[in-house]
Amino acid sequence: METITSLQNPRVKGVVRLGSRRERDREQRTVVEGVRETSLALARGVIPVEAFVCRDYLAEKGAQALLSQLQQLATAKRTKLFDVSPAVYDKMAYRSGSEGVLLVIPFLTRSLDDLGLGARPFLAIVDGVEKPGNLGAILRTADAAGLDALVLTDEEGGGTDIHNPNAIRASLGAFFTVPVVTTTRRQALSWLRSRDIAIVATTPEAETLYTRVDYAGPVAIVMGSEAQGLDQQWLQTADYQVRLPMAGMVDSLNLSVATALLLYEVVRQRDNGDNAGGQTG
Amino acid sequence: METITSLQNPRVKGVVRLGSRRERDREQRTVVEGVRETSLALARGVIPVEAFVCRDYLAEKGAQALLSQLQQLATAKRTKLFDVSPAVYDKMAYRSGSEGVLLVIPFLTRSLDDLGLGARPFLAIVDGVEKPGNLGAILRTADAAGLDALVLTDEEGGGTDIHNPNAIRASLGAFFTVPVVTTTRRQALSWLRSRDIAIVATTPEAETLYTRVDYAGPVAIVMGSEAQGLDQQWLQTADYQVRLPMAGMVDSLNLSVATALLLYEVVRQRDNGDNAGGQTG
Repeated sequence: METITSLQNPRVKGVVRLGSRRERDREQRTVVEGVRETSLALARGVIPVEAFVCRDYLAEKGAQALLSQLQQLATAKRTKLFDVSPAVYDKMAYRSGSEGVLLVIPFLTRSLDDLGLGARPFLAIVDGVEKPGNLGAILRTADAAGLDALVLTDEEGGGTDIHNPNAIRASLGAFFTVPVVTTTRRQALSWLRSRDIAIVATTPEAETLYTRVDYAGPVAIVMGSEAQGLDQQWLQTADYQVRLPMAGMVDSLNLSVATALLLYEVVRQRDNGDNAGGQTG
Repeated sequence: METITSLQNPRVKGVVRLGSRRERDREQRTVVEGVRETSLALARGVIPVEAFVCRDYLAEKGAQALLSQLQQLATAKRTKLFDVSPAVYDKMAYRSGSEGVLLVIPFLTRSLDDLGLGARPFLAIVDGVEKPGNLGAILRTADAAGLDALVLTDEEGGGTDIHNPNAIRASLGAFFTVPVVTTTRRQALSWLRSRDIAIVATTPEAETLYTRVDYAGPVAIVMGSEAQGLDQQWLQTADYQVRLPMAGMVDSLNLSVATALLLYEVVRQRDNGDNAGGQTG
């Protein structure tokens, strides 16, 4: 394993540059840090382009298995593996306490046609450009609710920065367990229509409460971004428009909370989603 | 209205000092910024100790009514009102774009016995010390779900920093619409028992799904903090232990999401909470 101790090393500078969205989009690569997150990435079959390990920081728990996986990838010449000094790691890391492991990985989004859907598809669509932290929180919920895929739409497609390291971090690694698609509104609409997936648009203007719709069949729950709300194209095409009951004086729920309420109503109606335990924590 | 242009003014320094929790606790005062948040505070009947207005920043919308309310309070000698320069405002403000109005207000939490409860109390309890941002998000949901009060408990009582300006900000002002109590675990437990309020403890180890309990009667939903989970004292005393279904690989939901799912299940069972519209945005 090659060792890097110079802050001026071009690979180190390359990782730092990936902090900018323009650079990520140009290289079609992003950065993932942390034992849990990188382990989930490898479990999903992601092959890192580069892996940087700082042994002084590397956590005890779970880190040995991760390190040997990375060493195997390096031996097979699939990943370039580097041992870095704490000073170098600190320069590259996007967050403190990121546990001494950092990967540069290729972009992971796929197209709608690449999605493997079961007999009863269950999708969520977030329309409009949304904040990375909210997307991460939505991915955590999507993982827990057993969503088939999260689809991010806007006019042009690709406006939402799902490969932002803050989104991946906020997802606690659920970015690697839930398939994500970025596409245009128009393409998502015609794809859903062609597969007879019911479109349920969530909007405060709806008359129907979200609990009064039958979610037993193939369904896509469509949420607008916090800033812009839901685009007319979705509202006009939706099979159902639904709203959440609001009893208070502050007129909005956080987007990740509103999305969770919709997704778990689908879970409740379908089978109460009875799998393992687990909840907050 | 007195004008302040000096960054060295003692009142300005006093507001800056309230950025520290120790100072807030010592003075039993905190800071609230923004037209929406300060308007909700005044609507709740809060009398600011001091009010600072920066006319260059003051938003058009809603600000005139707010300003005349503050002027009335100043005329009645209940609030000290100051006109400050942009430089002074920038020094005091905890966030950018806070719209040119900042209040110093007394602490607002009350005791359990001061709560006015209806015939069918609906409470949420967050046990253990939780992050201000999560508390703010929970307050938004509590407002929307029509909760009677949010109760924050720990061993000693008062560990959670609900008067942190970040909690108030993240609540979008719901801190002023939802009564908040901080108390000890022991006191909360005996108070709930004495009023025959059912205790529903949420824990990943429970066998019962959260949707399989009847929430028609008086109920307190108890959530553990993200870091520590739920204390044994709650688990042992609970009338029901419930869990959320988790289908995925990432083993936790965000605390504010998990709390929202529980609160809206109560709303769903009771009456589908049919009031006004409104949702994200």
